[in-house]
Amino acid sequence: MKEIIPRKVIYRLSVFLRCLQRLDENQIDMVSSDTLAKAAGVTPSQLRKDLAYFGQFGKKGLGYNVKDLMFRISELLGTNRLRPVILVGVGDLGSALLTYKGFEKEGFEIIAGFDQDTVRKRAKNYSIPLMGMAQLPEIILKEKVKMAILTVPATTAQTVANELIGLGITAILNFAPIVLEVPDHVLVNNVNLAMELENLSYFIKD
Amino acid sequence: MKEIIPRKVIYRLSVFLRCLQRLDENQIDMVSSDTLAKAAGVTPSQLRKDLAYFGQFGKKGLGYNVKDLMFRISELLGTNRLRPVILVGVGDLGSALLTYKGFEKEGFEIIAGFDQDTVRKRAKNYSIPLMGMAQLPEIILKEKVKMAILTVPATTAQTVANELIGLGITAILNFAPIVLEVPDHVLVNNVNLAMELENLSYFIKD
Repeated sequence: MKEIIPRKVIYRLSVFLRCLQRLDENQIDMVSSDTLAKAAGVTPSQLRKDLAYFGQFGKKGLGYNVKDLMFRISELLGTNRLRPVILVGVGDLGSALLTYKGFEKEGFEIIAGFDQDTVRKRAKNYSIPLMGMAQLPEIILKEKVKMAILTVPATTAQTVANELIGLGITAILNFAPIVLEVPDHVLVNNVNLAMELENLSYFIKD
Repeated sequence: MKEIIPRKVIYRLSVFLRCLQRLDENQIDMVSSDTLAKAAGVTPSQLRKDLAYFGQFGKKGLGYNVKDLMFRISELLGTNRLRPVILVGVGDLGSALLTYKGFEKEGFEIIAGFDQDTVRKRAKNYSIPLMGMAQLPEIILKEKVKMAILTVPATTAQTVANELIGLGITAILNFAPIVLEVPDHVLVNNVNLAMELENLSYFIKD
């Protein structure tokens, strides 16, 4: 069933989850599909259609129980327990992401950063352990890591990705500005902050 | 003309630009459309179709002059000169992005970070000036800033976005996990790193 659900639906689940978290912080117990849909920026019918992929949610005329829907969406997303993630490539961006504390509250724990040059970089005193590439197999196997954040330069990204996949990584959040070639069982999401800015830049009229 | 070009085409221009930069670093002067397309992960006909939106590029049988095509794409993207960008919201992520040095080499200069609480945060000693929200109008007008990186919490993102738009910002790179409502002349690109991880997490089979 996982195969047939469009990826956009999964993104919207993440948006719904965040809207529910805000409602919960404001001590709201129940929410109508109209209100939740409006908060998430979709139509009520889109919300109902998206949730229908995963079963029966909410009660007719009563709406959704906020805590219950939060729990069920977290469960679907696999974030109701902390998932171990490794970060490979501790350059400018990797280093910035290692200092970012926001992942943990979303259900992801960066358990280690890996780099070829750990001596110079270890000087920065990260709270997360910094390791050499030789320690990748040990950590991935021991901690059963499936997800990696890839922040190496474009020139080495494919080689490093191949190594990670060989060690059992099946999901990569890729910041390198290249199109990774990966086997069918591996998923890649690409993020390129400079490209997002360039895209905006193009459309600015001046 | 800018209106009718699909945004995906503009993203691909960014990918082509990065492939060309790598060729240039390797002292390659000319590239065939087949080679450039392969490096960018598109078909040669897609590459030619994308470039055709913007005029005549390359010579039949000779391919593209690497430096020339780099220059013309940068010009299209508006990154052949440094564009001023402001960052609003110096929390965990904003703070990480302020320490990231990668934007400048891509044509973007974060000229200042803004936050409500500058006293406590200024202690961190960023190389980029940190200012209070009251200084927004002055800086935006003086430096003719059109682009903002928005890293405030979801609860204040819409209010801050409204303020920025009122001051002349027309392009926002939004990291807050909400759907911003903006006038037609304003563009928003959304980035949510935790949501990207969640999306991957959903598809991991375990």
